[in-house]
Order: sequence, then structure tokens, then C-alpha cells
Amino acid sequence: MEYRLLIETNDEKGLVYKISKLLFEYNLNIEKNAEYVDNEVNKFFMRTVITGEFDNVQLLKDLKELLPNESEIKLSPNTKKDIVILATKEAHCLGDILIRYASGELEANIKAVIANHEILRDLVEKFGIEFVCVSHEGLTREIHEDKMIEAIDTYEPELIVLAKYMRILNPKFVKHFNRKILNIHHSFLPAFIGANPYKQAWQRGVKIIGATAHYVTDDLDEGPIISQDVIHVDHNYSWENMRDAGRNVEKIVLSNALNLLLEDRVFIYNNKTVIL
Amino acid sequence: MEYRLLIETNDEKGLVYKISKLLFEYNLNIEKNAEYVDNEVNKFFMRTVITGEFDNVQLLKDLKELLPNESEIKLSPNTKKDIVILATKEAHCLGDILIRYASGELEANIKAVIANHEILRDLVEKFGIEFVCVSHEGLTREIHEDKMIEAIDTYEPELIVLAKYMRILNPKFVKHFNRKILNIHHSFLPAFIGANPYKQAWQRGVKIIGATAHYVTDDLDEGPIISQDVIHVDHNYSWENMRDAGRNVEKIVLSNALNLLLEDRVFIYNNKTVIL
Amino acid sequence: MEYRLLIETNDEKGLVYKISKLLFEYNLNIEKNAEYVDNEVNKFFMRTVITGEFDNVQLLKDLKELLPNESEIKLSPNTKKDIVILATKEAHCLGDILIRYASGELEANIKAVIANHEILRDLVEKFGIEFVCVSHEGLTREIHEDKMIEAIDTYEPELIVLAKYMRILNPKFVKHFNRKILNIHHSFLPAFIGANPYKQAWQRGVKIIGATAHYVTDDLDEGPIISQDVIHVDHNYSWENMRDAGRNVEKIVLSNALNLLLEDRVFIYNNKTVIL
Amino acid sequence: MEYRLLIETNDEKGLVYKISKLLFEYNLNIEKNAEYVDNEVNKFFMRTVITGEFDNVQLLKDLKELLPNESEIKLSPNTKKDIVILATKEAHCLGDILIRYASGELEANIKAVIANHEILRDLVEKFGIEFVCVSHEGLTREIHEDKMIEAIDTYEPELIVLAKYMRILNPKFVKHFNRKILNIHHSFLPAFIGANPYKQAWQRGVKIIGATAHYVTDDLDEGPIISQDVIHVDHNYSWENMRDAGRNVEKIVLSNALNLLLEDRVFIYNNKTVIL
Repeated sequence: MEYRLLIETNDEKGLVYKISKLLFEYNLNIEKNAEYVDNEVNKFFMRTVITGEFDNVQLLKDLKELLPNESEIKLSPNTKKDIVILATKEAHCLGDILIRYASGELEANIKAVIANHEILRDLVEKFGIEFVCVSHEGLTREIHEDKMIEAIDTYEPELIVLAKYMRILNPKFVKHFNRKILNIHHSFLPAFIGANPYKQAWQRGVKIIGATAHYVTDDLDEGPIISQDVIHVDHNYSWENMRDAGRNVEKIVLSNALNLLLEDRVFIYNNKTVIL
Repeated sequence: MEYRLLIETNDEKGLVYKISKLLFEYNLNIEKNAEYVDNEVNKFFMRTVITGEFDNVQLLKDLKELLPNESEIKLSPNTKKDIVILATKEAHCLGDILIRYASGELEANIKAVIANHEILRDLVEKFGIEFVCVSHEGLTREIHEDKMIEAIDTYEPELIVLAKYMRILNPKFVKHFNRKILNIHHSFLPAFIGANPYKQAWQRGVKIIGATAHYVTDDLDEGPIISQDVIHVDHNYSWENMRDAGRNVEKIVLSNALNLLLEDRVFIYNNKTVIL
Repeated sequence: MEYRLLIETNDEKGLVYKISKLLFEYNLNIEKNAEYVDNEVNKFFMRTVITGEFDNVQLLKDLKELLPNESEIKLSPNTKKDIVILATKEAHCLGDILIRYASGELEANIKAVIANHEILRDLVEKFGIEFVCVSHEGLTREIHEDKMIEAIDTYEPELIVLAKYMRILNPKFVKHFNRKILNIHHSFLPAFIGANPYKQAWQRGVKIIGATAHYVTDDLDEGPIISQDVIHVDHNYSWENMRDAGRNVEKIVLSNALNLLLEDRVFIYNNKTVIL
Repeated sequence: MEYRLLIETNDEKGLVYKISKLLFEYNLNIEKNAEYVDNEVNKFFMRTVITGEFDNVQLLKDLKELLPNESEIKLSPNTKKDIVILATKEAHCLGDILIRYASGELEANIKAVIANHEILRDLVEKFGIEFVCVSHEGLTREIHEDKMIEAIDTYEPELIVLAKYMRILNPKFVKHFNRKILNIHHSFLPAFIGANPYKQAWQRGVKIIGATAHYVTDDLDEGPIISQDVIHVDHNYSWENMRDAGRNVEKIVLSNALNLLLEDRVFIYNNKTVIL
């Protein structure tokens, strides 16, 4: 079995030595290894892909003893993670994930797609995936979110992918799924925060449009950025043209970010990401 | 002699027919022709490169008669334009223009470089170009700007290039050189408006940084965008690394935008540009 | 009804005038107009989007009289074109088109997907689209192609999209569907022509990989290029990683090129394209 | 003093442990650390930035004892390297380096610029840098190269930068400066190998042009690739327009690759590079 070992701790002399010594004593094969030190805040990050026969409970225990108290240590098996996808009406991001899923390219089990509209049911059910509609009609935001939380919790997902889920999330929701929510924002953040960024971009006369995949935290559109990309546009683009062209960027950026999360490659700190 | 004919007018049926008829009657060769119609605001834009023997005063007169009253018509010869460059301390944008100039690649006469520091004098004078320092030390912004205006006016430039001129401009200055000022902003506008955008970008943890060349209008960083580009960065970049990498984007974006202006390819309307 | 008028002819003075005069006399609205002249070979290209009430047979006749004999004139209505998609085993390009189709974003009727393997049947039939398998097992290339031609002809497509159809095409096939075949090549042509370009690219140690959408002509991978794009890679990529990352480029480049063809925006000459 | 330690060796279990143990015993600070293992060929690469007080001769000796026999170990101080630049007639790549040099941004001492034409003398001498013309007029390629070798050897450079030096190099020259020659090729290798790649690219009708920085080995344009980038072009570009636009890519790609070499970040093996 292959495991990914992720360590985040305060930097100190000899960390690599101590950790690599322990892994050597466990007689593990190190398939990949990457480290990063942020000297400014004195933080050490390490991601190691290990194989071999070992007692992973004991390894975690030994690592905890070895490392400073406040360290975060994660030992994640290379298996498909359970995910739930949230959507509203647009098919491009969801569709891109579904096609990867159907081709066996996605390292995840899609437990369900949950949406606040019925529009995407037909597409999702084509792929034999459960579709749940939690309509927001006639409900307060709070009550709707409680129903969403309940629906999501049924599937116990390790990750929630907002594939153009067009509802603002309350702190309660975000807190409930802390560090588990991936969003695609249809602009090159931090430009054009808020509603209809393509129209904003068009009005501003930009020559580039982009998309941003990020973790969701309390502030809308302000979470740690995982991936971004852009394409060039010109005066010939109406805002609808920008939106259509932007969809290609959105779906690729979201799929790339999702792959990074499924491979346990992303650390979060100081509202930023380190990707190893 | 080659001329660029630029027409901006209200759109109406038969415009291309009328204009091309006149040019045909003048027996002109049309080397290039491009049109754009913004259906939303009913505006027609046309740029035509013409050669041949003709009376350009008469042509302009005939065009004015032909077209609606509020039309803007410009007939610009394909000759080197006189420009003045403003700078402060950084050499990369200025240096890129100087190298192009020295190689004969720049379609402009650099009449002078005017800066508020002495630092770049040595570099500029290497190229046999006049360097003028108008220090802001001990002066109010208003008085410094009056001196800058006076210094610039001496050279009667058709275009003023802000090659990392790090001073905010007052409306008086902008109005005095209306539609003549090209700026490079060291970020992907409209993100990170204001001071030290690289530090802002680094703090936000972005995965892309960019630069924007734009006309200067009253609002700082809010003028019509001419050109933008970006590069990918990651967590390994300190903000100084971002700044250094960003310099490459800045200088290329500025030089590209400058080329577009020197070729009379840029129309301004509604705080946007049409580039034909 | 909206029509796209495409004209390709030898350049001569007054062409725009003559054509725009005729369109004016027909009282047509010109929604968009673009021209291009290749001075080297003296060729004139024009694409005009027109609306209005008119007799299109008469307009074509009048244009033919007006223009030099060897002109190519095409008047194409803004309606969905019938297309057939060819595939083999890979789902990413096909899947991207299917999702667009299901969302109503594709300006085409997919008449059928024809493949030489059964693998993609399940995916295609999910979308209610006819899937035809023409297996090449035990057949000569010639006989297989004859069966493919026969199968395709049933649907009378205006355009054939090779969405990762991994068979070399004989001249007979290409001639039968002259200027109707769009292919996606999984490399940045003209680099890595031939089999397994990702393995070739990886062995060469490139830092960029790309994809090319092009018309198919007699020479394999040598037809007129319509669209290209690239992504950056590094030493961490195995050739399988390159292939997986390349799939994103392939599907976006193919979809973009397909959009251009469906909008009648592509001219072919001298083994190149002009895109207006 | 800061040193970069570069290790290339056969991979075996415990390498990181052994090396980090030694560095820990030397009480060194590890500022940065990166490793890469190519599992296919069983090669291990490591780059570590170390600071502290230590005997670097002894450290090298200890590392040699620790590591397998055929290991390559390099301990390079963080000081400016001596470089010589070769050029012919074009100023853009050379000029970009000169501006960085004059601004204090280049981590190198330019000992001389050596060219086979006089054209660039004026530009180089503006910057107070020695310019040597070794004309090839009337000389065989062999004799000219011998004179070039002699001229270069005078300056004992650690690195030779071909900034658009338009002469084919013989194996003798390449061998003499083994793994010390950086070249910029004006195309996206391996496309358009050989003379006038922009004309080749234009004739092929490509939609993207690029540049490649690589080490020079015996085969022309076939050395290990360090850096590549591209820009989009379209049918409006003549081959001269492509060349002019391509110059921006060339100079940025060359400067980026030069930075990587000056920072000792590039390993070579199997005609590829690993960049840590």
C-alpha cells in the first residue's frame, strides 16, 4: 500500500534528518519527497510518498513523539476519496468531472451530486450517480443550508466540490465542512469579486479573463487559492462570449485543483496554499 | 507615403460602402482594412492603411462631409512619432525601450527621458538621449507637476510613456496630455490597485501575476486597458521574486502596447479600447 | 435569417467598394465584417454576417458576376450543421463535445459517433446519440475505410470531427470528404509527428507540450492548422503525466476549432488558414 | 557564506537520511532543499542551499565517502559567476542581459562580449564591457573556431551564453566548453530545426511560435532543454512580424534559463534537464 505522509511544523535544524532517519528505520521506500520552508514564518512543510510494510498507527505515534507538539501530521492512503459535488444549473464544470469519472481517470468516488435546481438531474443520472435536489424555494438561507448540510452529511464525503454552485455559504456551513470545500470562482481573483464577474470584466474592458480554484473560508471569494489560469480576449468579445470562453478555463482549473486535493498535495496556512 | 485612416462614428447602414467608394474614387491602394461595430452602443470603428498620391486635406474634408457630424476622423502618416518617457528609478521598462531604440526597431523618436530621480541618468545618456531630472524634493505635488508639464511641453511629444514613473498624477496633468499618456501598471488590473501590488499579490497567495498597460485617465489605475499578460508563480516565490519575475511581464506588455499606439491601432471609448 | 457570406478571390482595387455597394443595394444589415489581404499571393478574403430579407440565389448570382471568375463564394445560413464524430477508445475529446451538446452550447447536430472499437458505446448512448462500431479487425485498411465511408455517408454530414480517431486515413478517404475533416493532433505540430508524441516529447525532455487542431489533407499531420495551444511541464512529469495533462489541451483546442468551423470563420489556402 | 550543494547519484534506500545526517553533524543551516528521483533510471538528484561555518574541502571529502562511487557532487558558492557572451548582429537578447547587468540584477560578471561582426560593439561598449570581434571573413570554420576558443579562454568563463550567435559550432568547440554553453534557439524545439525557423513557421501556418533555451551538445539544436515559452500568432503575421514578436520570447526565455544556471539549479542527464 502507498501512503502520503504530510507534515506541517515549526522549522528547526535537523528536521529532515530526524524524519528521514525514522523512515529509514521503518525500512520504507520513499517514492517521492518534497519539502518547503517558509523562512518568514518559520514553517516547515513536507510531503513524502512511502511504500512498504509498516504499522501506520505506530508510525504516526513515533512521528508525534519526534516532532514539536503543535505539528500537524497526516498519513493518507493512496485510495479513491469519497466526494460530493454541489451544483446549480451550469453543466460545464460538473460535466468535465463526470467524463473523467466515467473514463476511470478520476481518483474519487462521486457519492452524489446535490443541487438547488432540477436542471442537471438528467445529465447526472446518465452516469449512474445519485442526484439530490435540495430546492431553496421558499426557504430562508439558513434553513436551506441546514438541509444541504444534512443531505451532504449522509454521504460522509472527504471533500465537497462546488462545481458552479451559485449560492453564498454561511459561516455555519463553512465551519461544518472545515477545509473540505473546493470552489471554482469565475474570475481571476481578487479581481471582480462578487456577482457576474464576466459582465464586470467586460465593462472594465479587460484583455484577459481567468478563473480561480480555492478553498472556501468564511469570506466569500477570499479563501486560499489553489490554482488559477487565464485566456486572452479582445474587444470582439461580448460579455456572453467572455462567459463562454471562460467556461473552458473554469473547468480545467477546477479539475486541476481537484486532482491536487485528491493526491493530498495541498497544505493551507496563512490563507495561502503550499503545493508539494 | 503610407497613411493610417481612423474613423469612429455612429453606425448606420452603408457606411463601409460610402467610405470605400470615396477611397476608390481617390484611386487609393488599401493595404489593410479592419472594421468593428459595437452593436450595443451603435458605434462604428474603422482603420484603413492607404497608399497613393492624394491631397490629404481634401480627403479629410470629403470624409467629414460624408460622415455624421460627430465623427472622429484621423489621418496619420506612417512616420516615427515623437515621444517622451517618464521614469523614476527602475530600469527594466525603460531599458527595454532603449534597446529597441538603439537597434532601430522602435518606430519613435525619443526626445527625452524625464525622471524625478537622478539614478537612471547614466543609463539614458549612454544612448545619447537627453535626460532631465525634475526632482520632487521639497515641492508640493502641484508645483512638481507644473514643472513636469513644462519640461515635457518643451519636447512637444505626441505620446508620453510612463515607464515605471512612480508618482500619482493629478487631473490637471492628465487633462493637459489628454489621451496621450501610456502607463504600465505592475499588476493584473483591476486586482491589486494601489501601492506595492506584488506584496499584495504575495500576501493573497495568488498563483498568477500580471501586468497591465493602459491609458491614463483621472482615476488612478482606471484608464482604458490596452494590453495585459500574466505568468504563473507558486509558493516558492517571495514577494521580491514575484516583483523580479513580474518585471519581464511589465516590460513586454508595455513595449507591445507602445507598438500598438505607434501604429495608430488603438481607439478609446467608454473607458475601453478597440484595437484594429 | 442570418447568413455568413464568405468570399475568397484575387485582390484588386475597389473590391470592398463593389461588394459593399451590392450589399447596400440589397438593403442588408451588416452585423459583422472582416477582411484580410495576403499581399504576397494577392489574395482577398472577406467574411460578412448579414441579416435582412433577400433572395440568396440572386445574391450569389450577382456576386459571381461582380467578382473575378475564379472567386469562391459561400453563403451559409446561421443554422446548426450536421456533424459526425469519429473516435477510437479515448473519451476526453468526445466527452467534452457531448457535454456541450447536452447543455445546448454546441451549434451542431451530432448525427452519429462512429468508432472502430466498442469501448465508447456506453458513453455515447447515454446522450441518446447513435453509436456505430465499424471494427477494423481482420480487415485491410482499404476495406475498413470503405466501410467507414459508407457508414459516414449515411448521415450526410457537413463536417467530420476526428475526436482522437487513431487510424491513419488514406487519400481516398480524405478526398471523399474534401475540406470536411477536422482532426486533433496530440502534439504541438510540426514537432513530434507520428505515433505516441507524448513519449517522444518526454524523451526529448521538453518543457512545454501542446495540441494542434487542423484540417486533414493527404499528408498525415500536415494539413492546415486551425488552432494550437500549450501547457508548461517539467521533469516531474512521466510521459503518462504528460499525456494526462495534454488531454486538457487537446479537448479545449479541438472544441475551439470546432466552434470556428461551425461559425464558418475558417478559410483554407496554401495549406494555411485565415480565420475571420 | 552560502553554498549550493548539488548531488547526482544512483538512488538507494536511506540516501536522504545519510546526507541530512552529515549536514546535521556539520551543524549547517539548510535554507532550501529539493530532491528528485527518476525511478525509471534509478537516479537521485538533490540541491541543498546551506549556510554556516564549515570546511568545504572536508565536507566534499565526507560526502564522497558517504555516497556511491560514481556520484557527482558539486559545492558552489553563492557568488557572481564569470560569463562570456557570444553574439552576431542581433541586439535583443544581448541587450536584455546588458540592461539587467547595468541595473545590478544579474548574478554574473560579464567578462566580455565576443562577436563575429562589429555591429554590436557600440552597444556593448556603452556599458563599459569589453567587446572582441573575431571575424570569420576569409577563414575556414575550423580556424575561426580556434580563434574563438582562444579568445574565450582568455576570460576563463564558467559559462558561455550564445545570445543569438548565428554560427554552427563544431564538436571540438562544444567539447572544449563541455556543459558550459547556453544557447537560445529561435523556435519551439524540436519544431523547425535549422535555418530561419520563423520563415519555416510562417510557411507552415502555425498559430503559436516559441523559443527554446538549451545546453549545446554535439548535435545542433539537440541539447538538453532548460526553458521554453510561446506566444500566439495568427494569419495577420508576416514572417517578419513573427520574428519581431518572437524576439520578446527569445530574450525572456534566455534570461530565465541564464538565471537558473547562475543559481546552480540545473542538472543534466540523458539529454534532459532536472531543475531543482
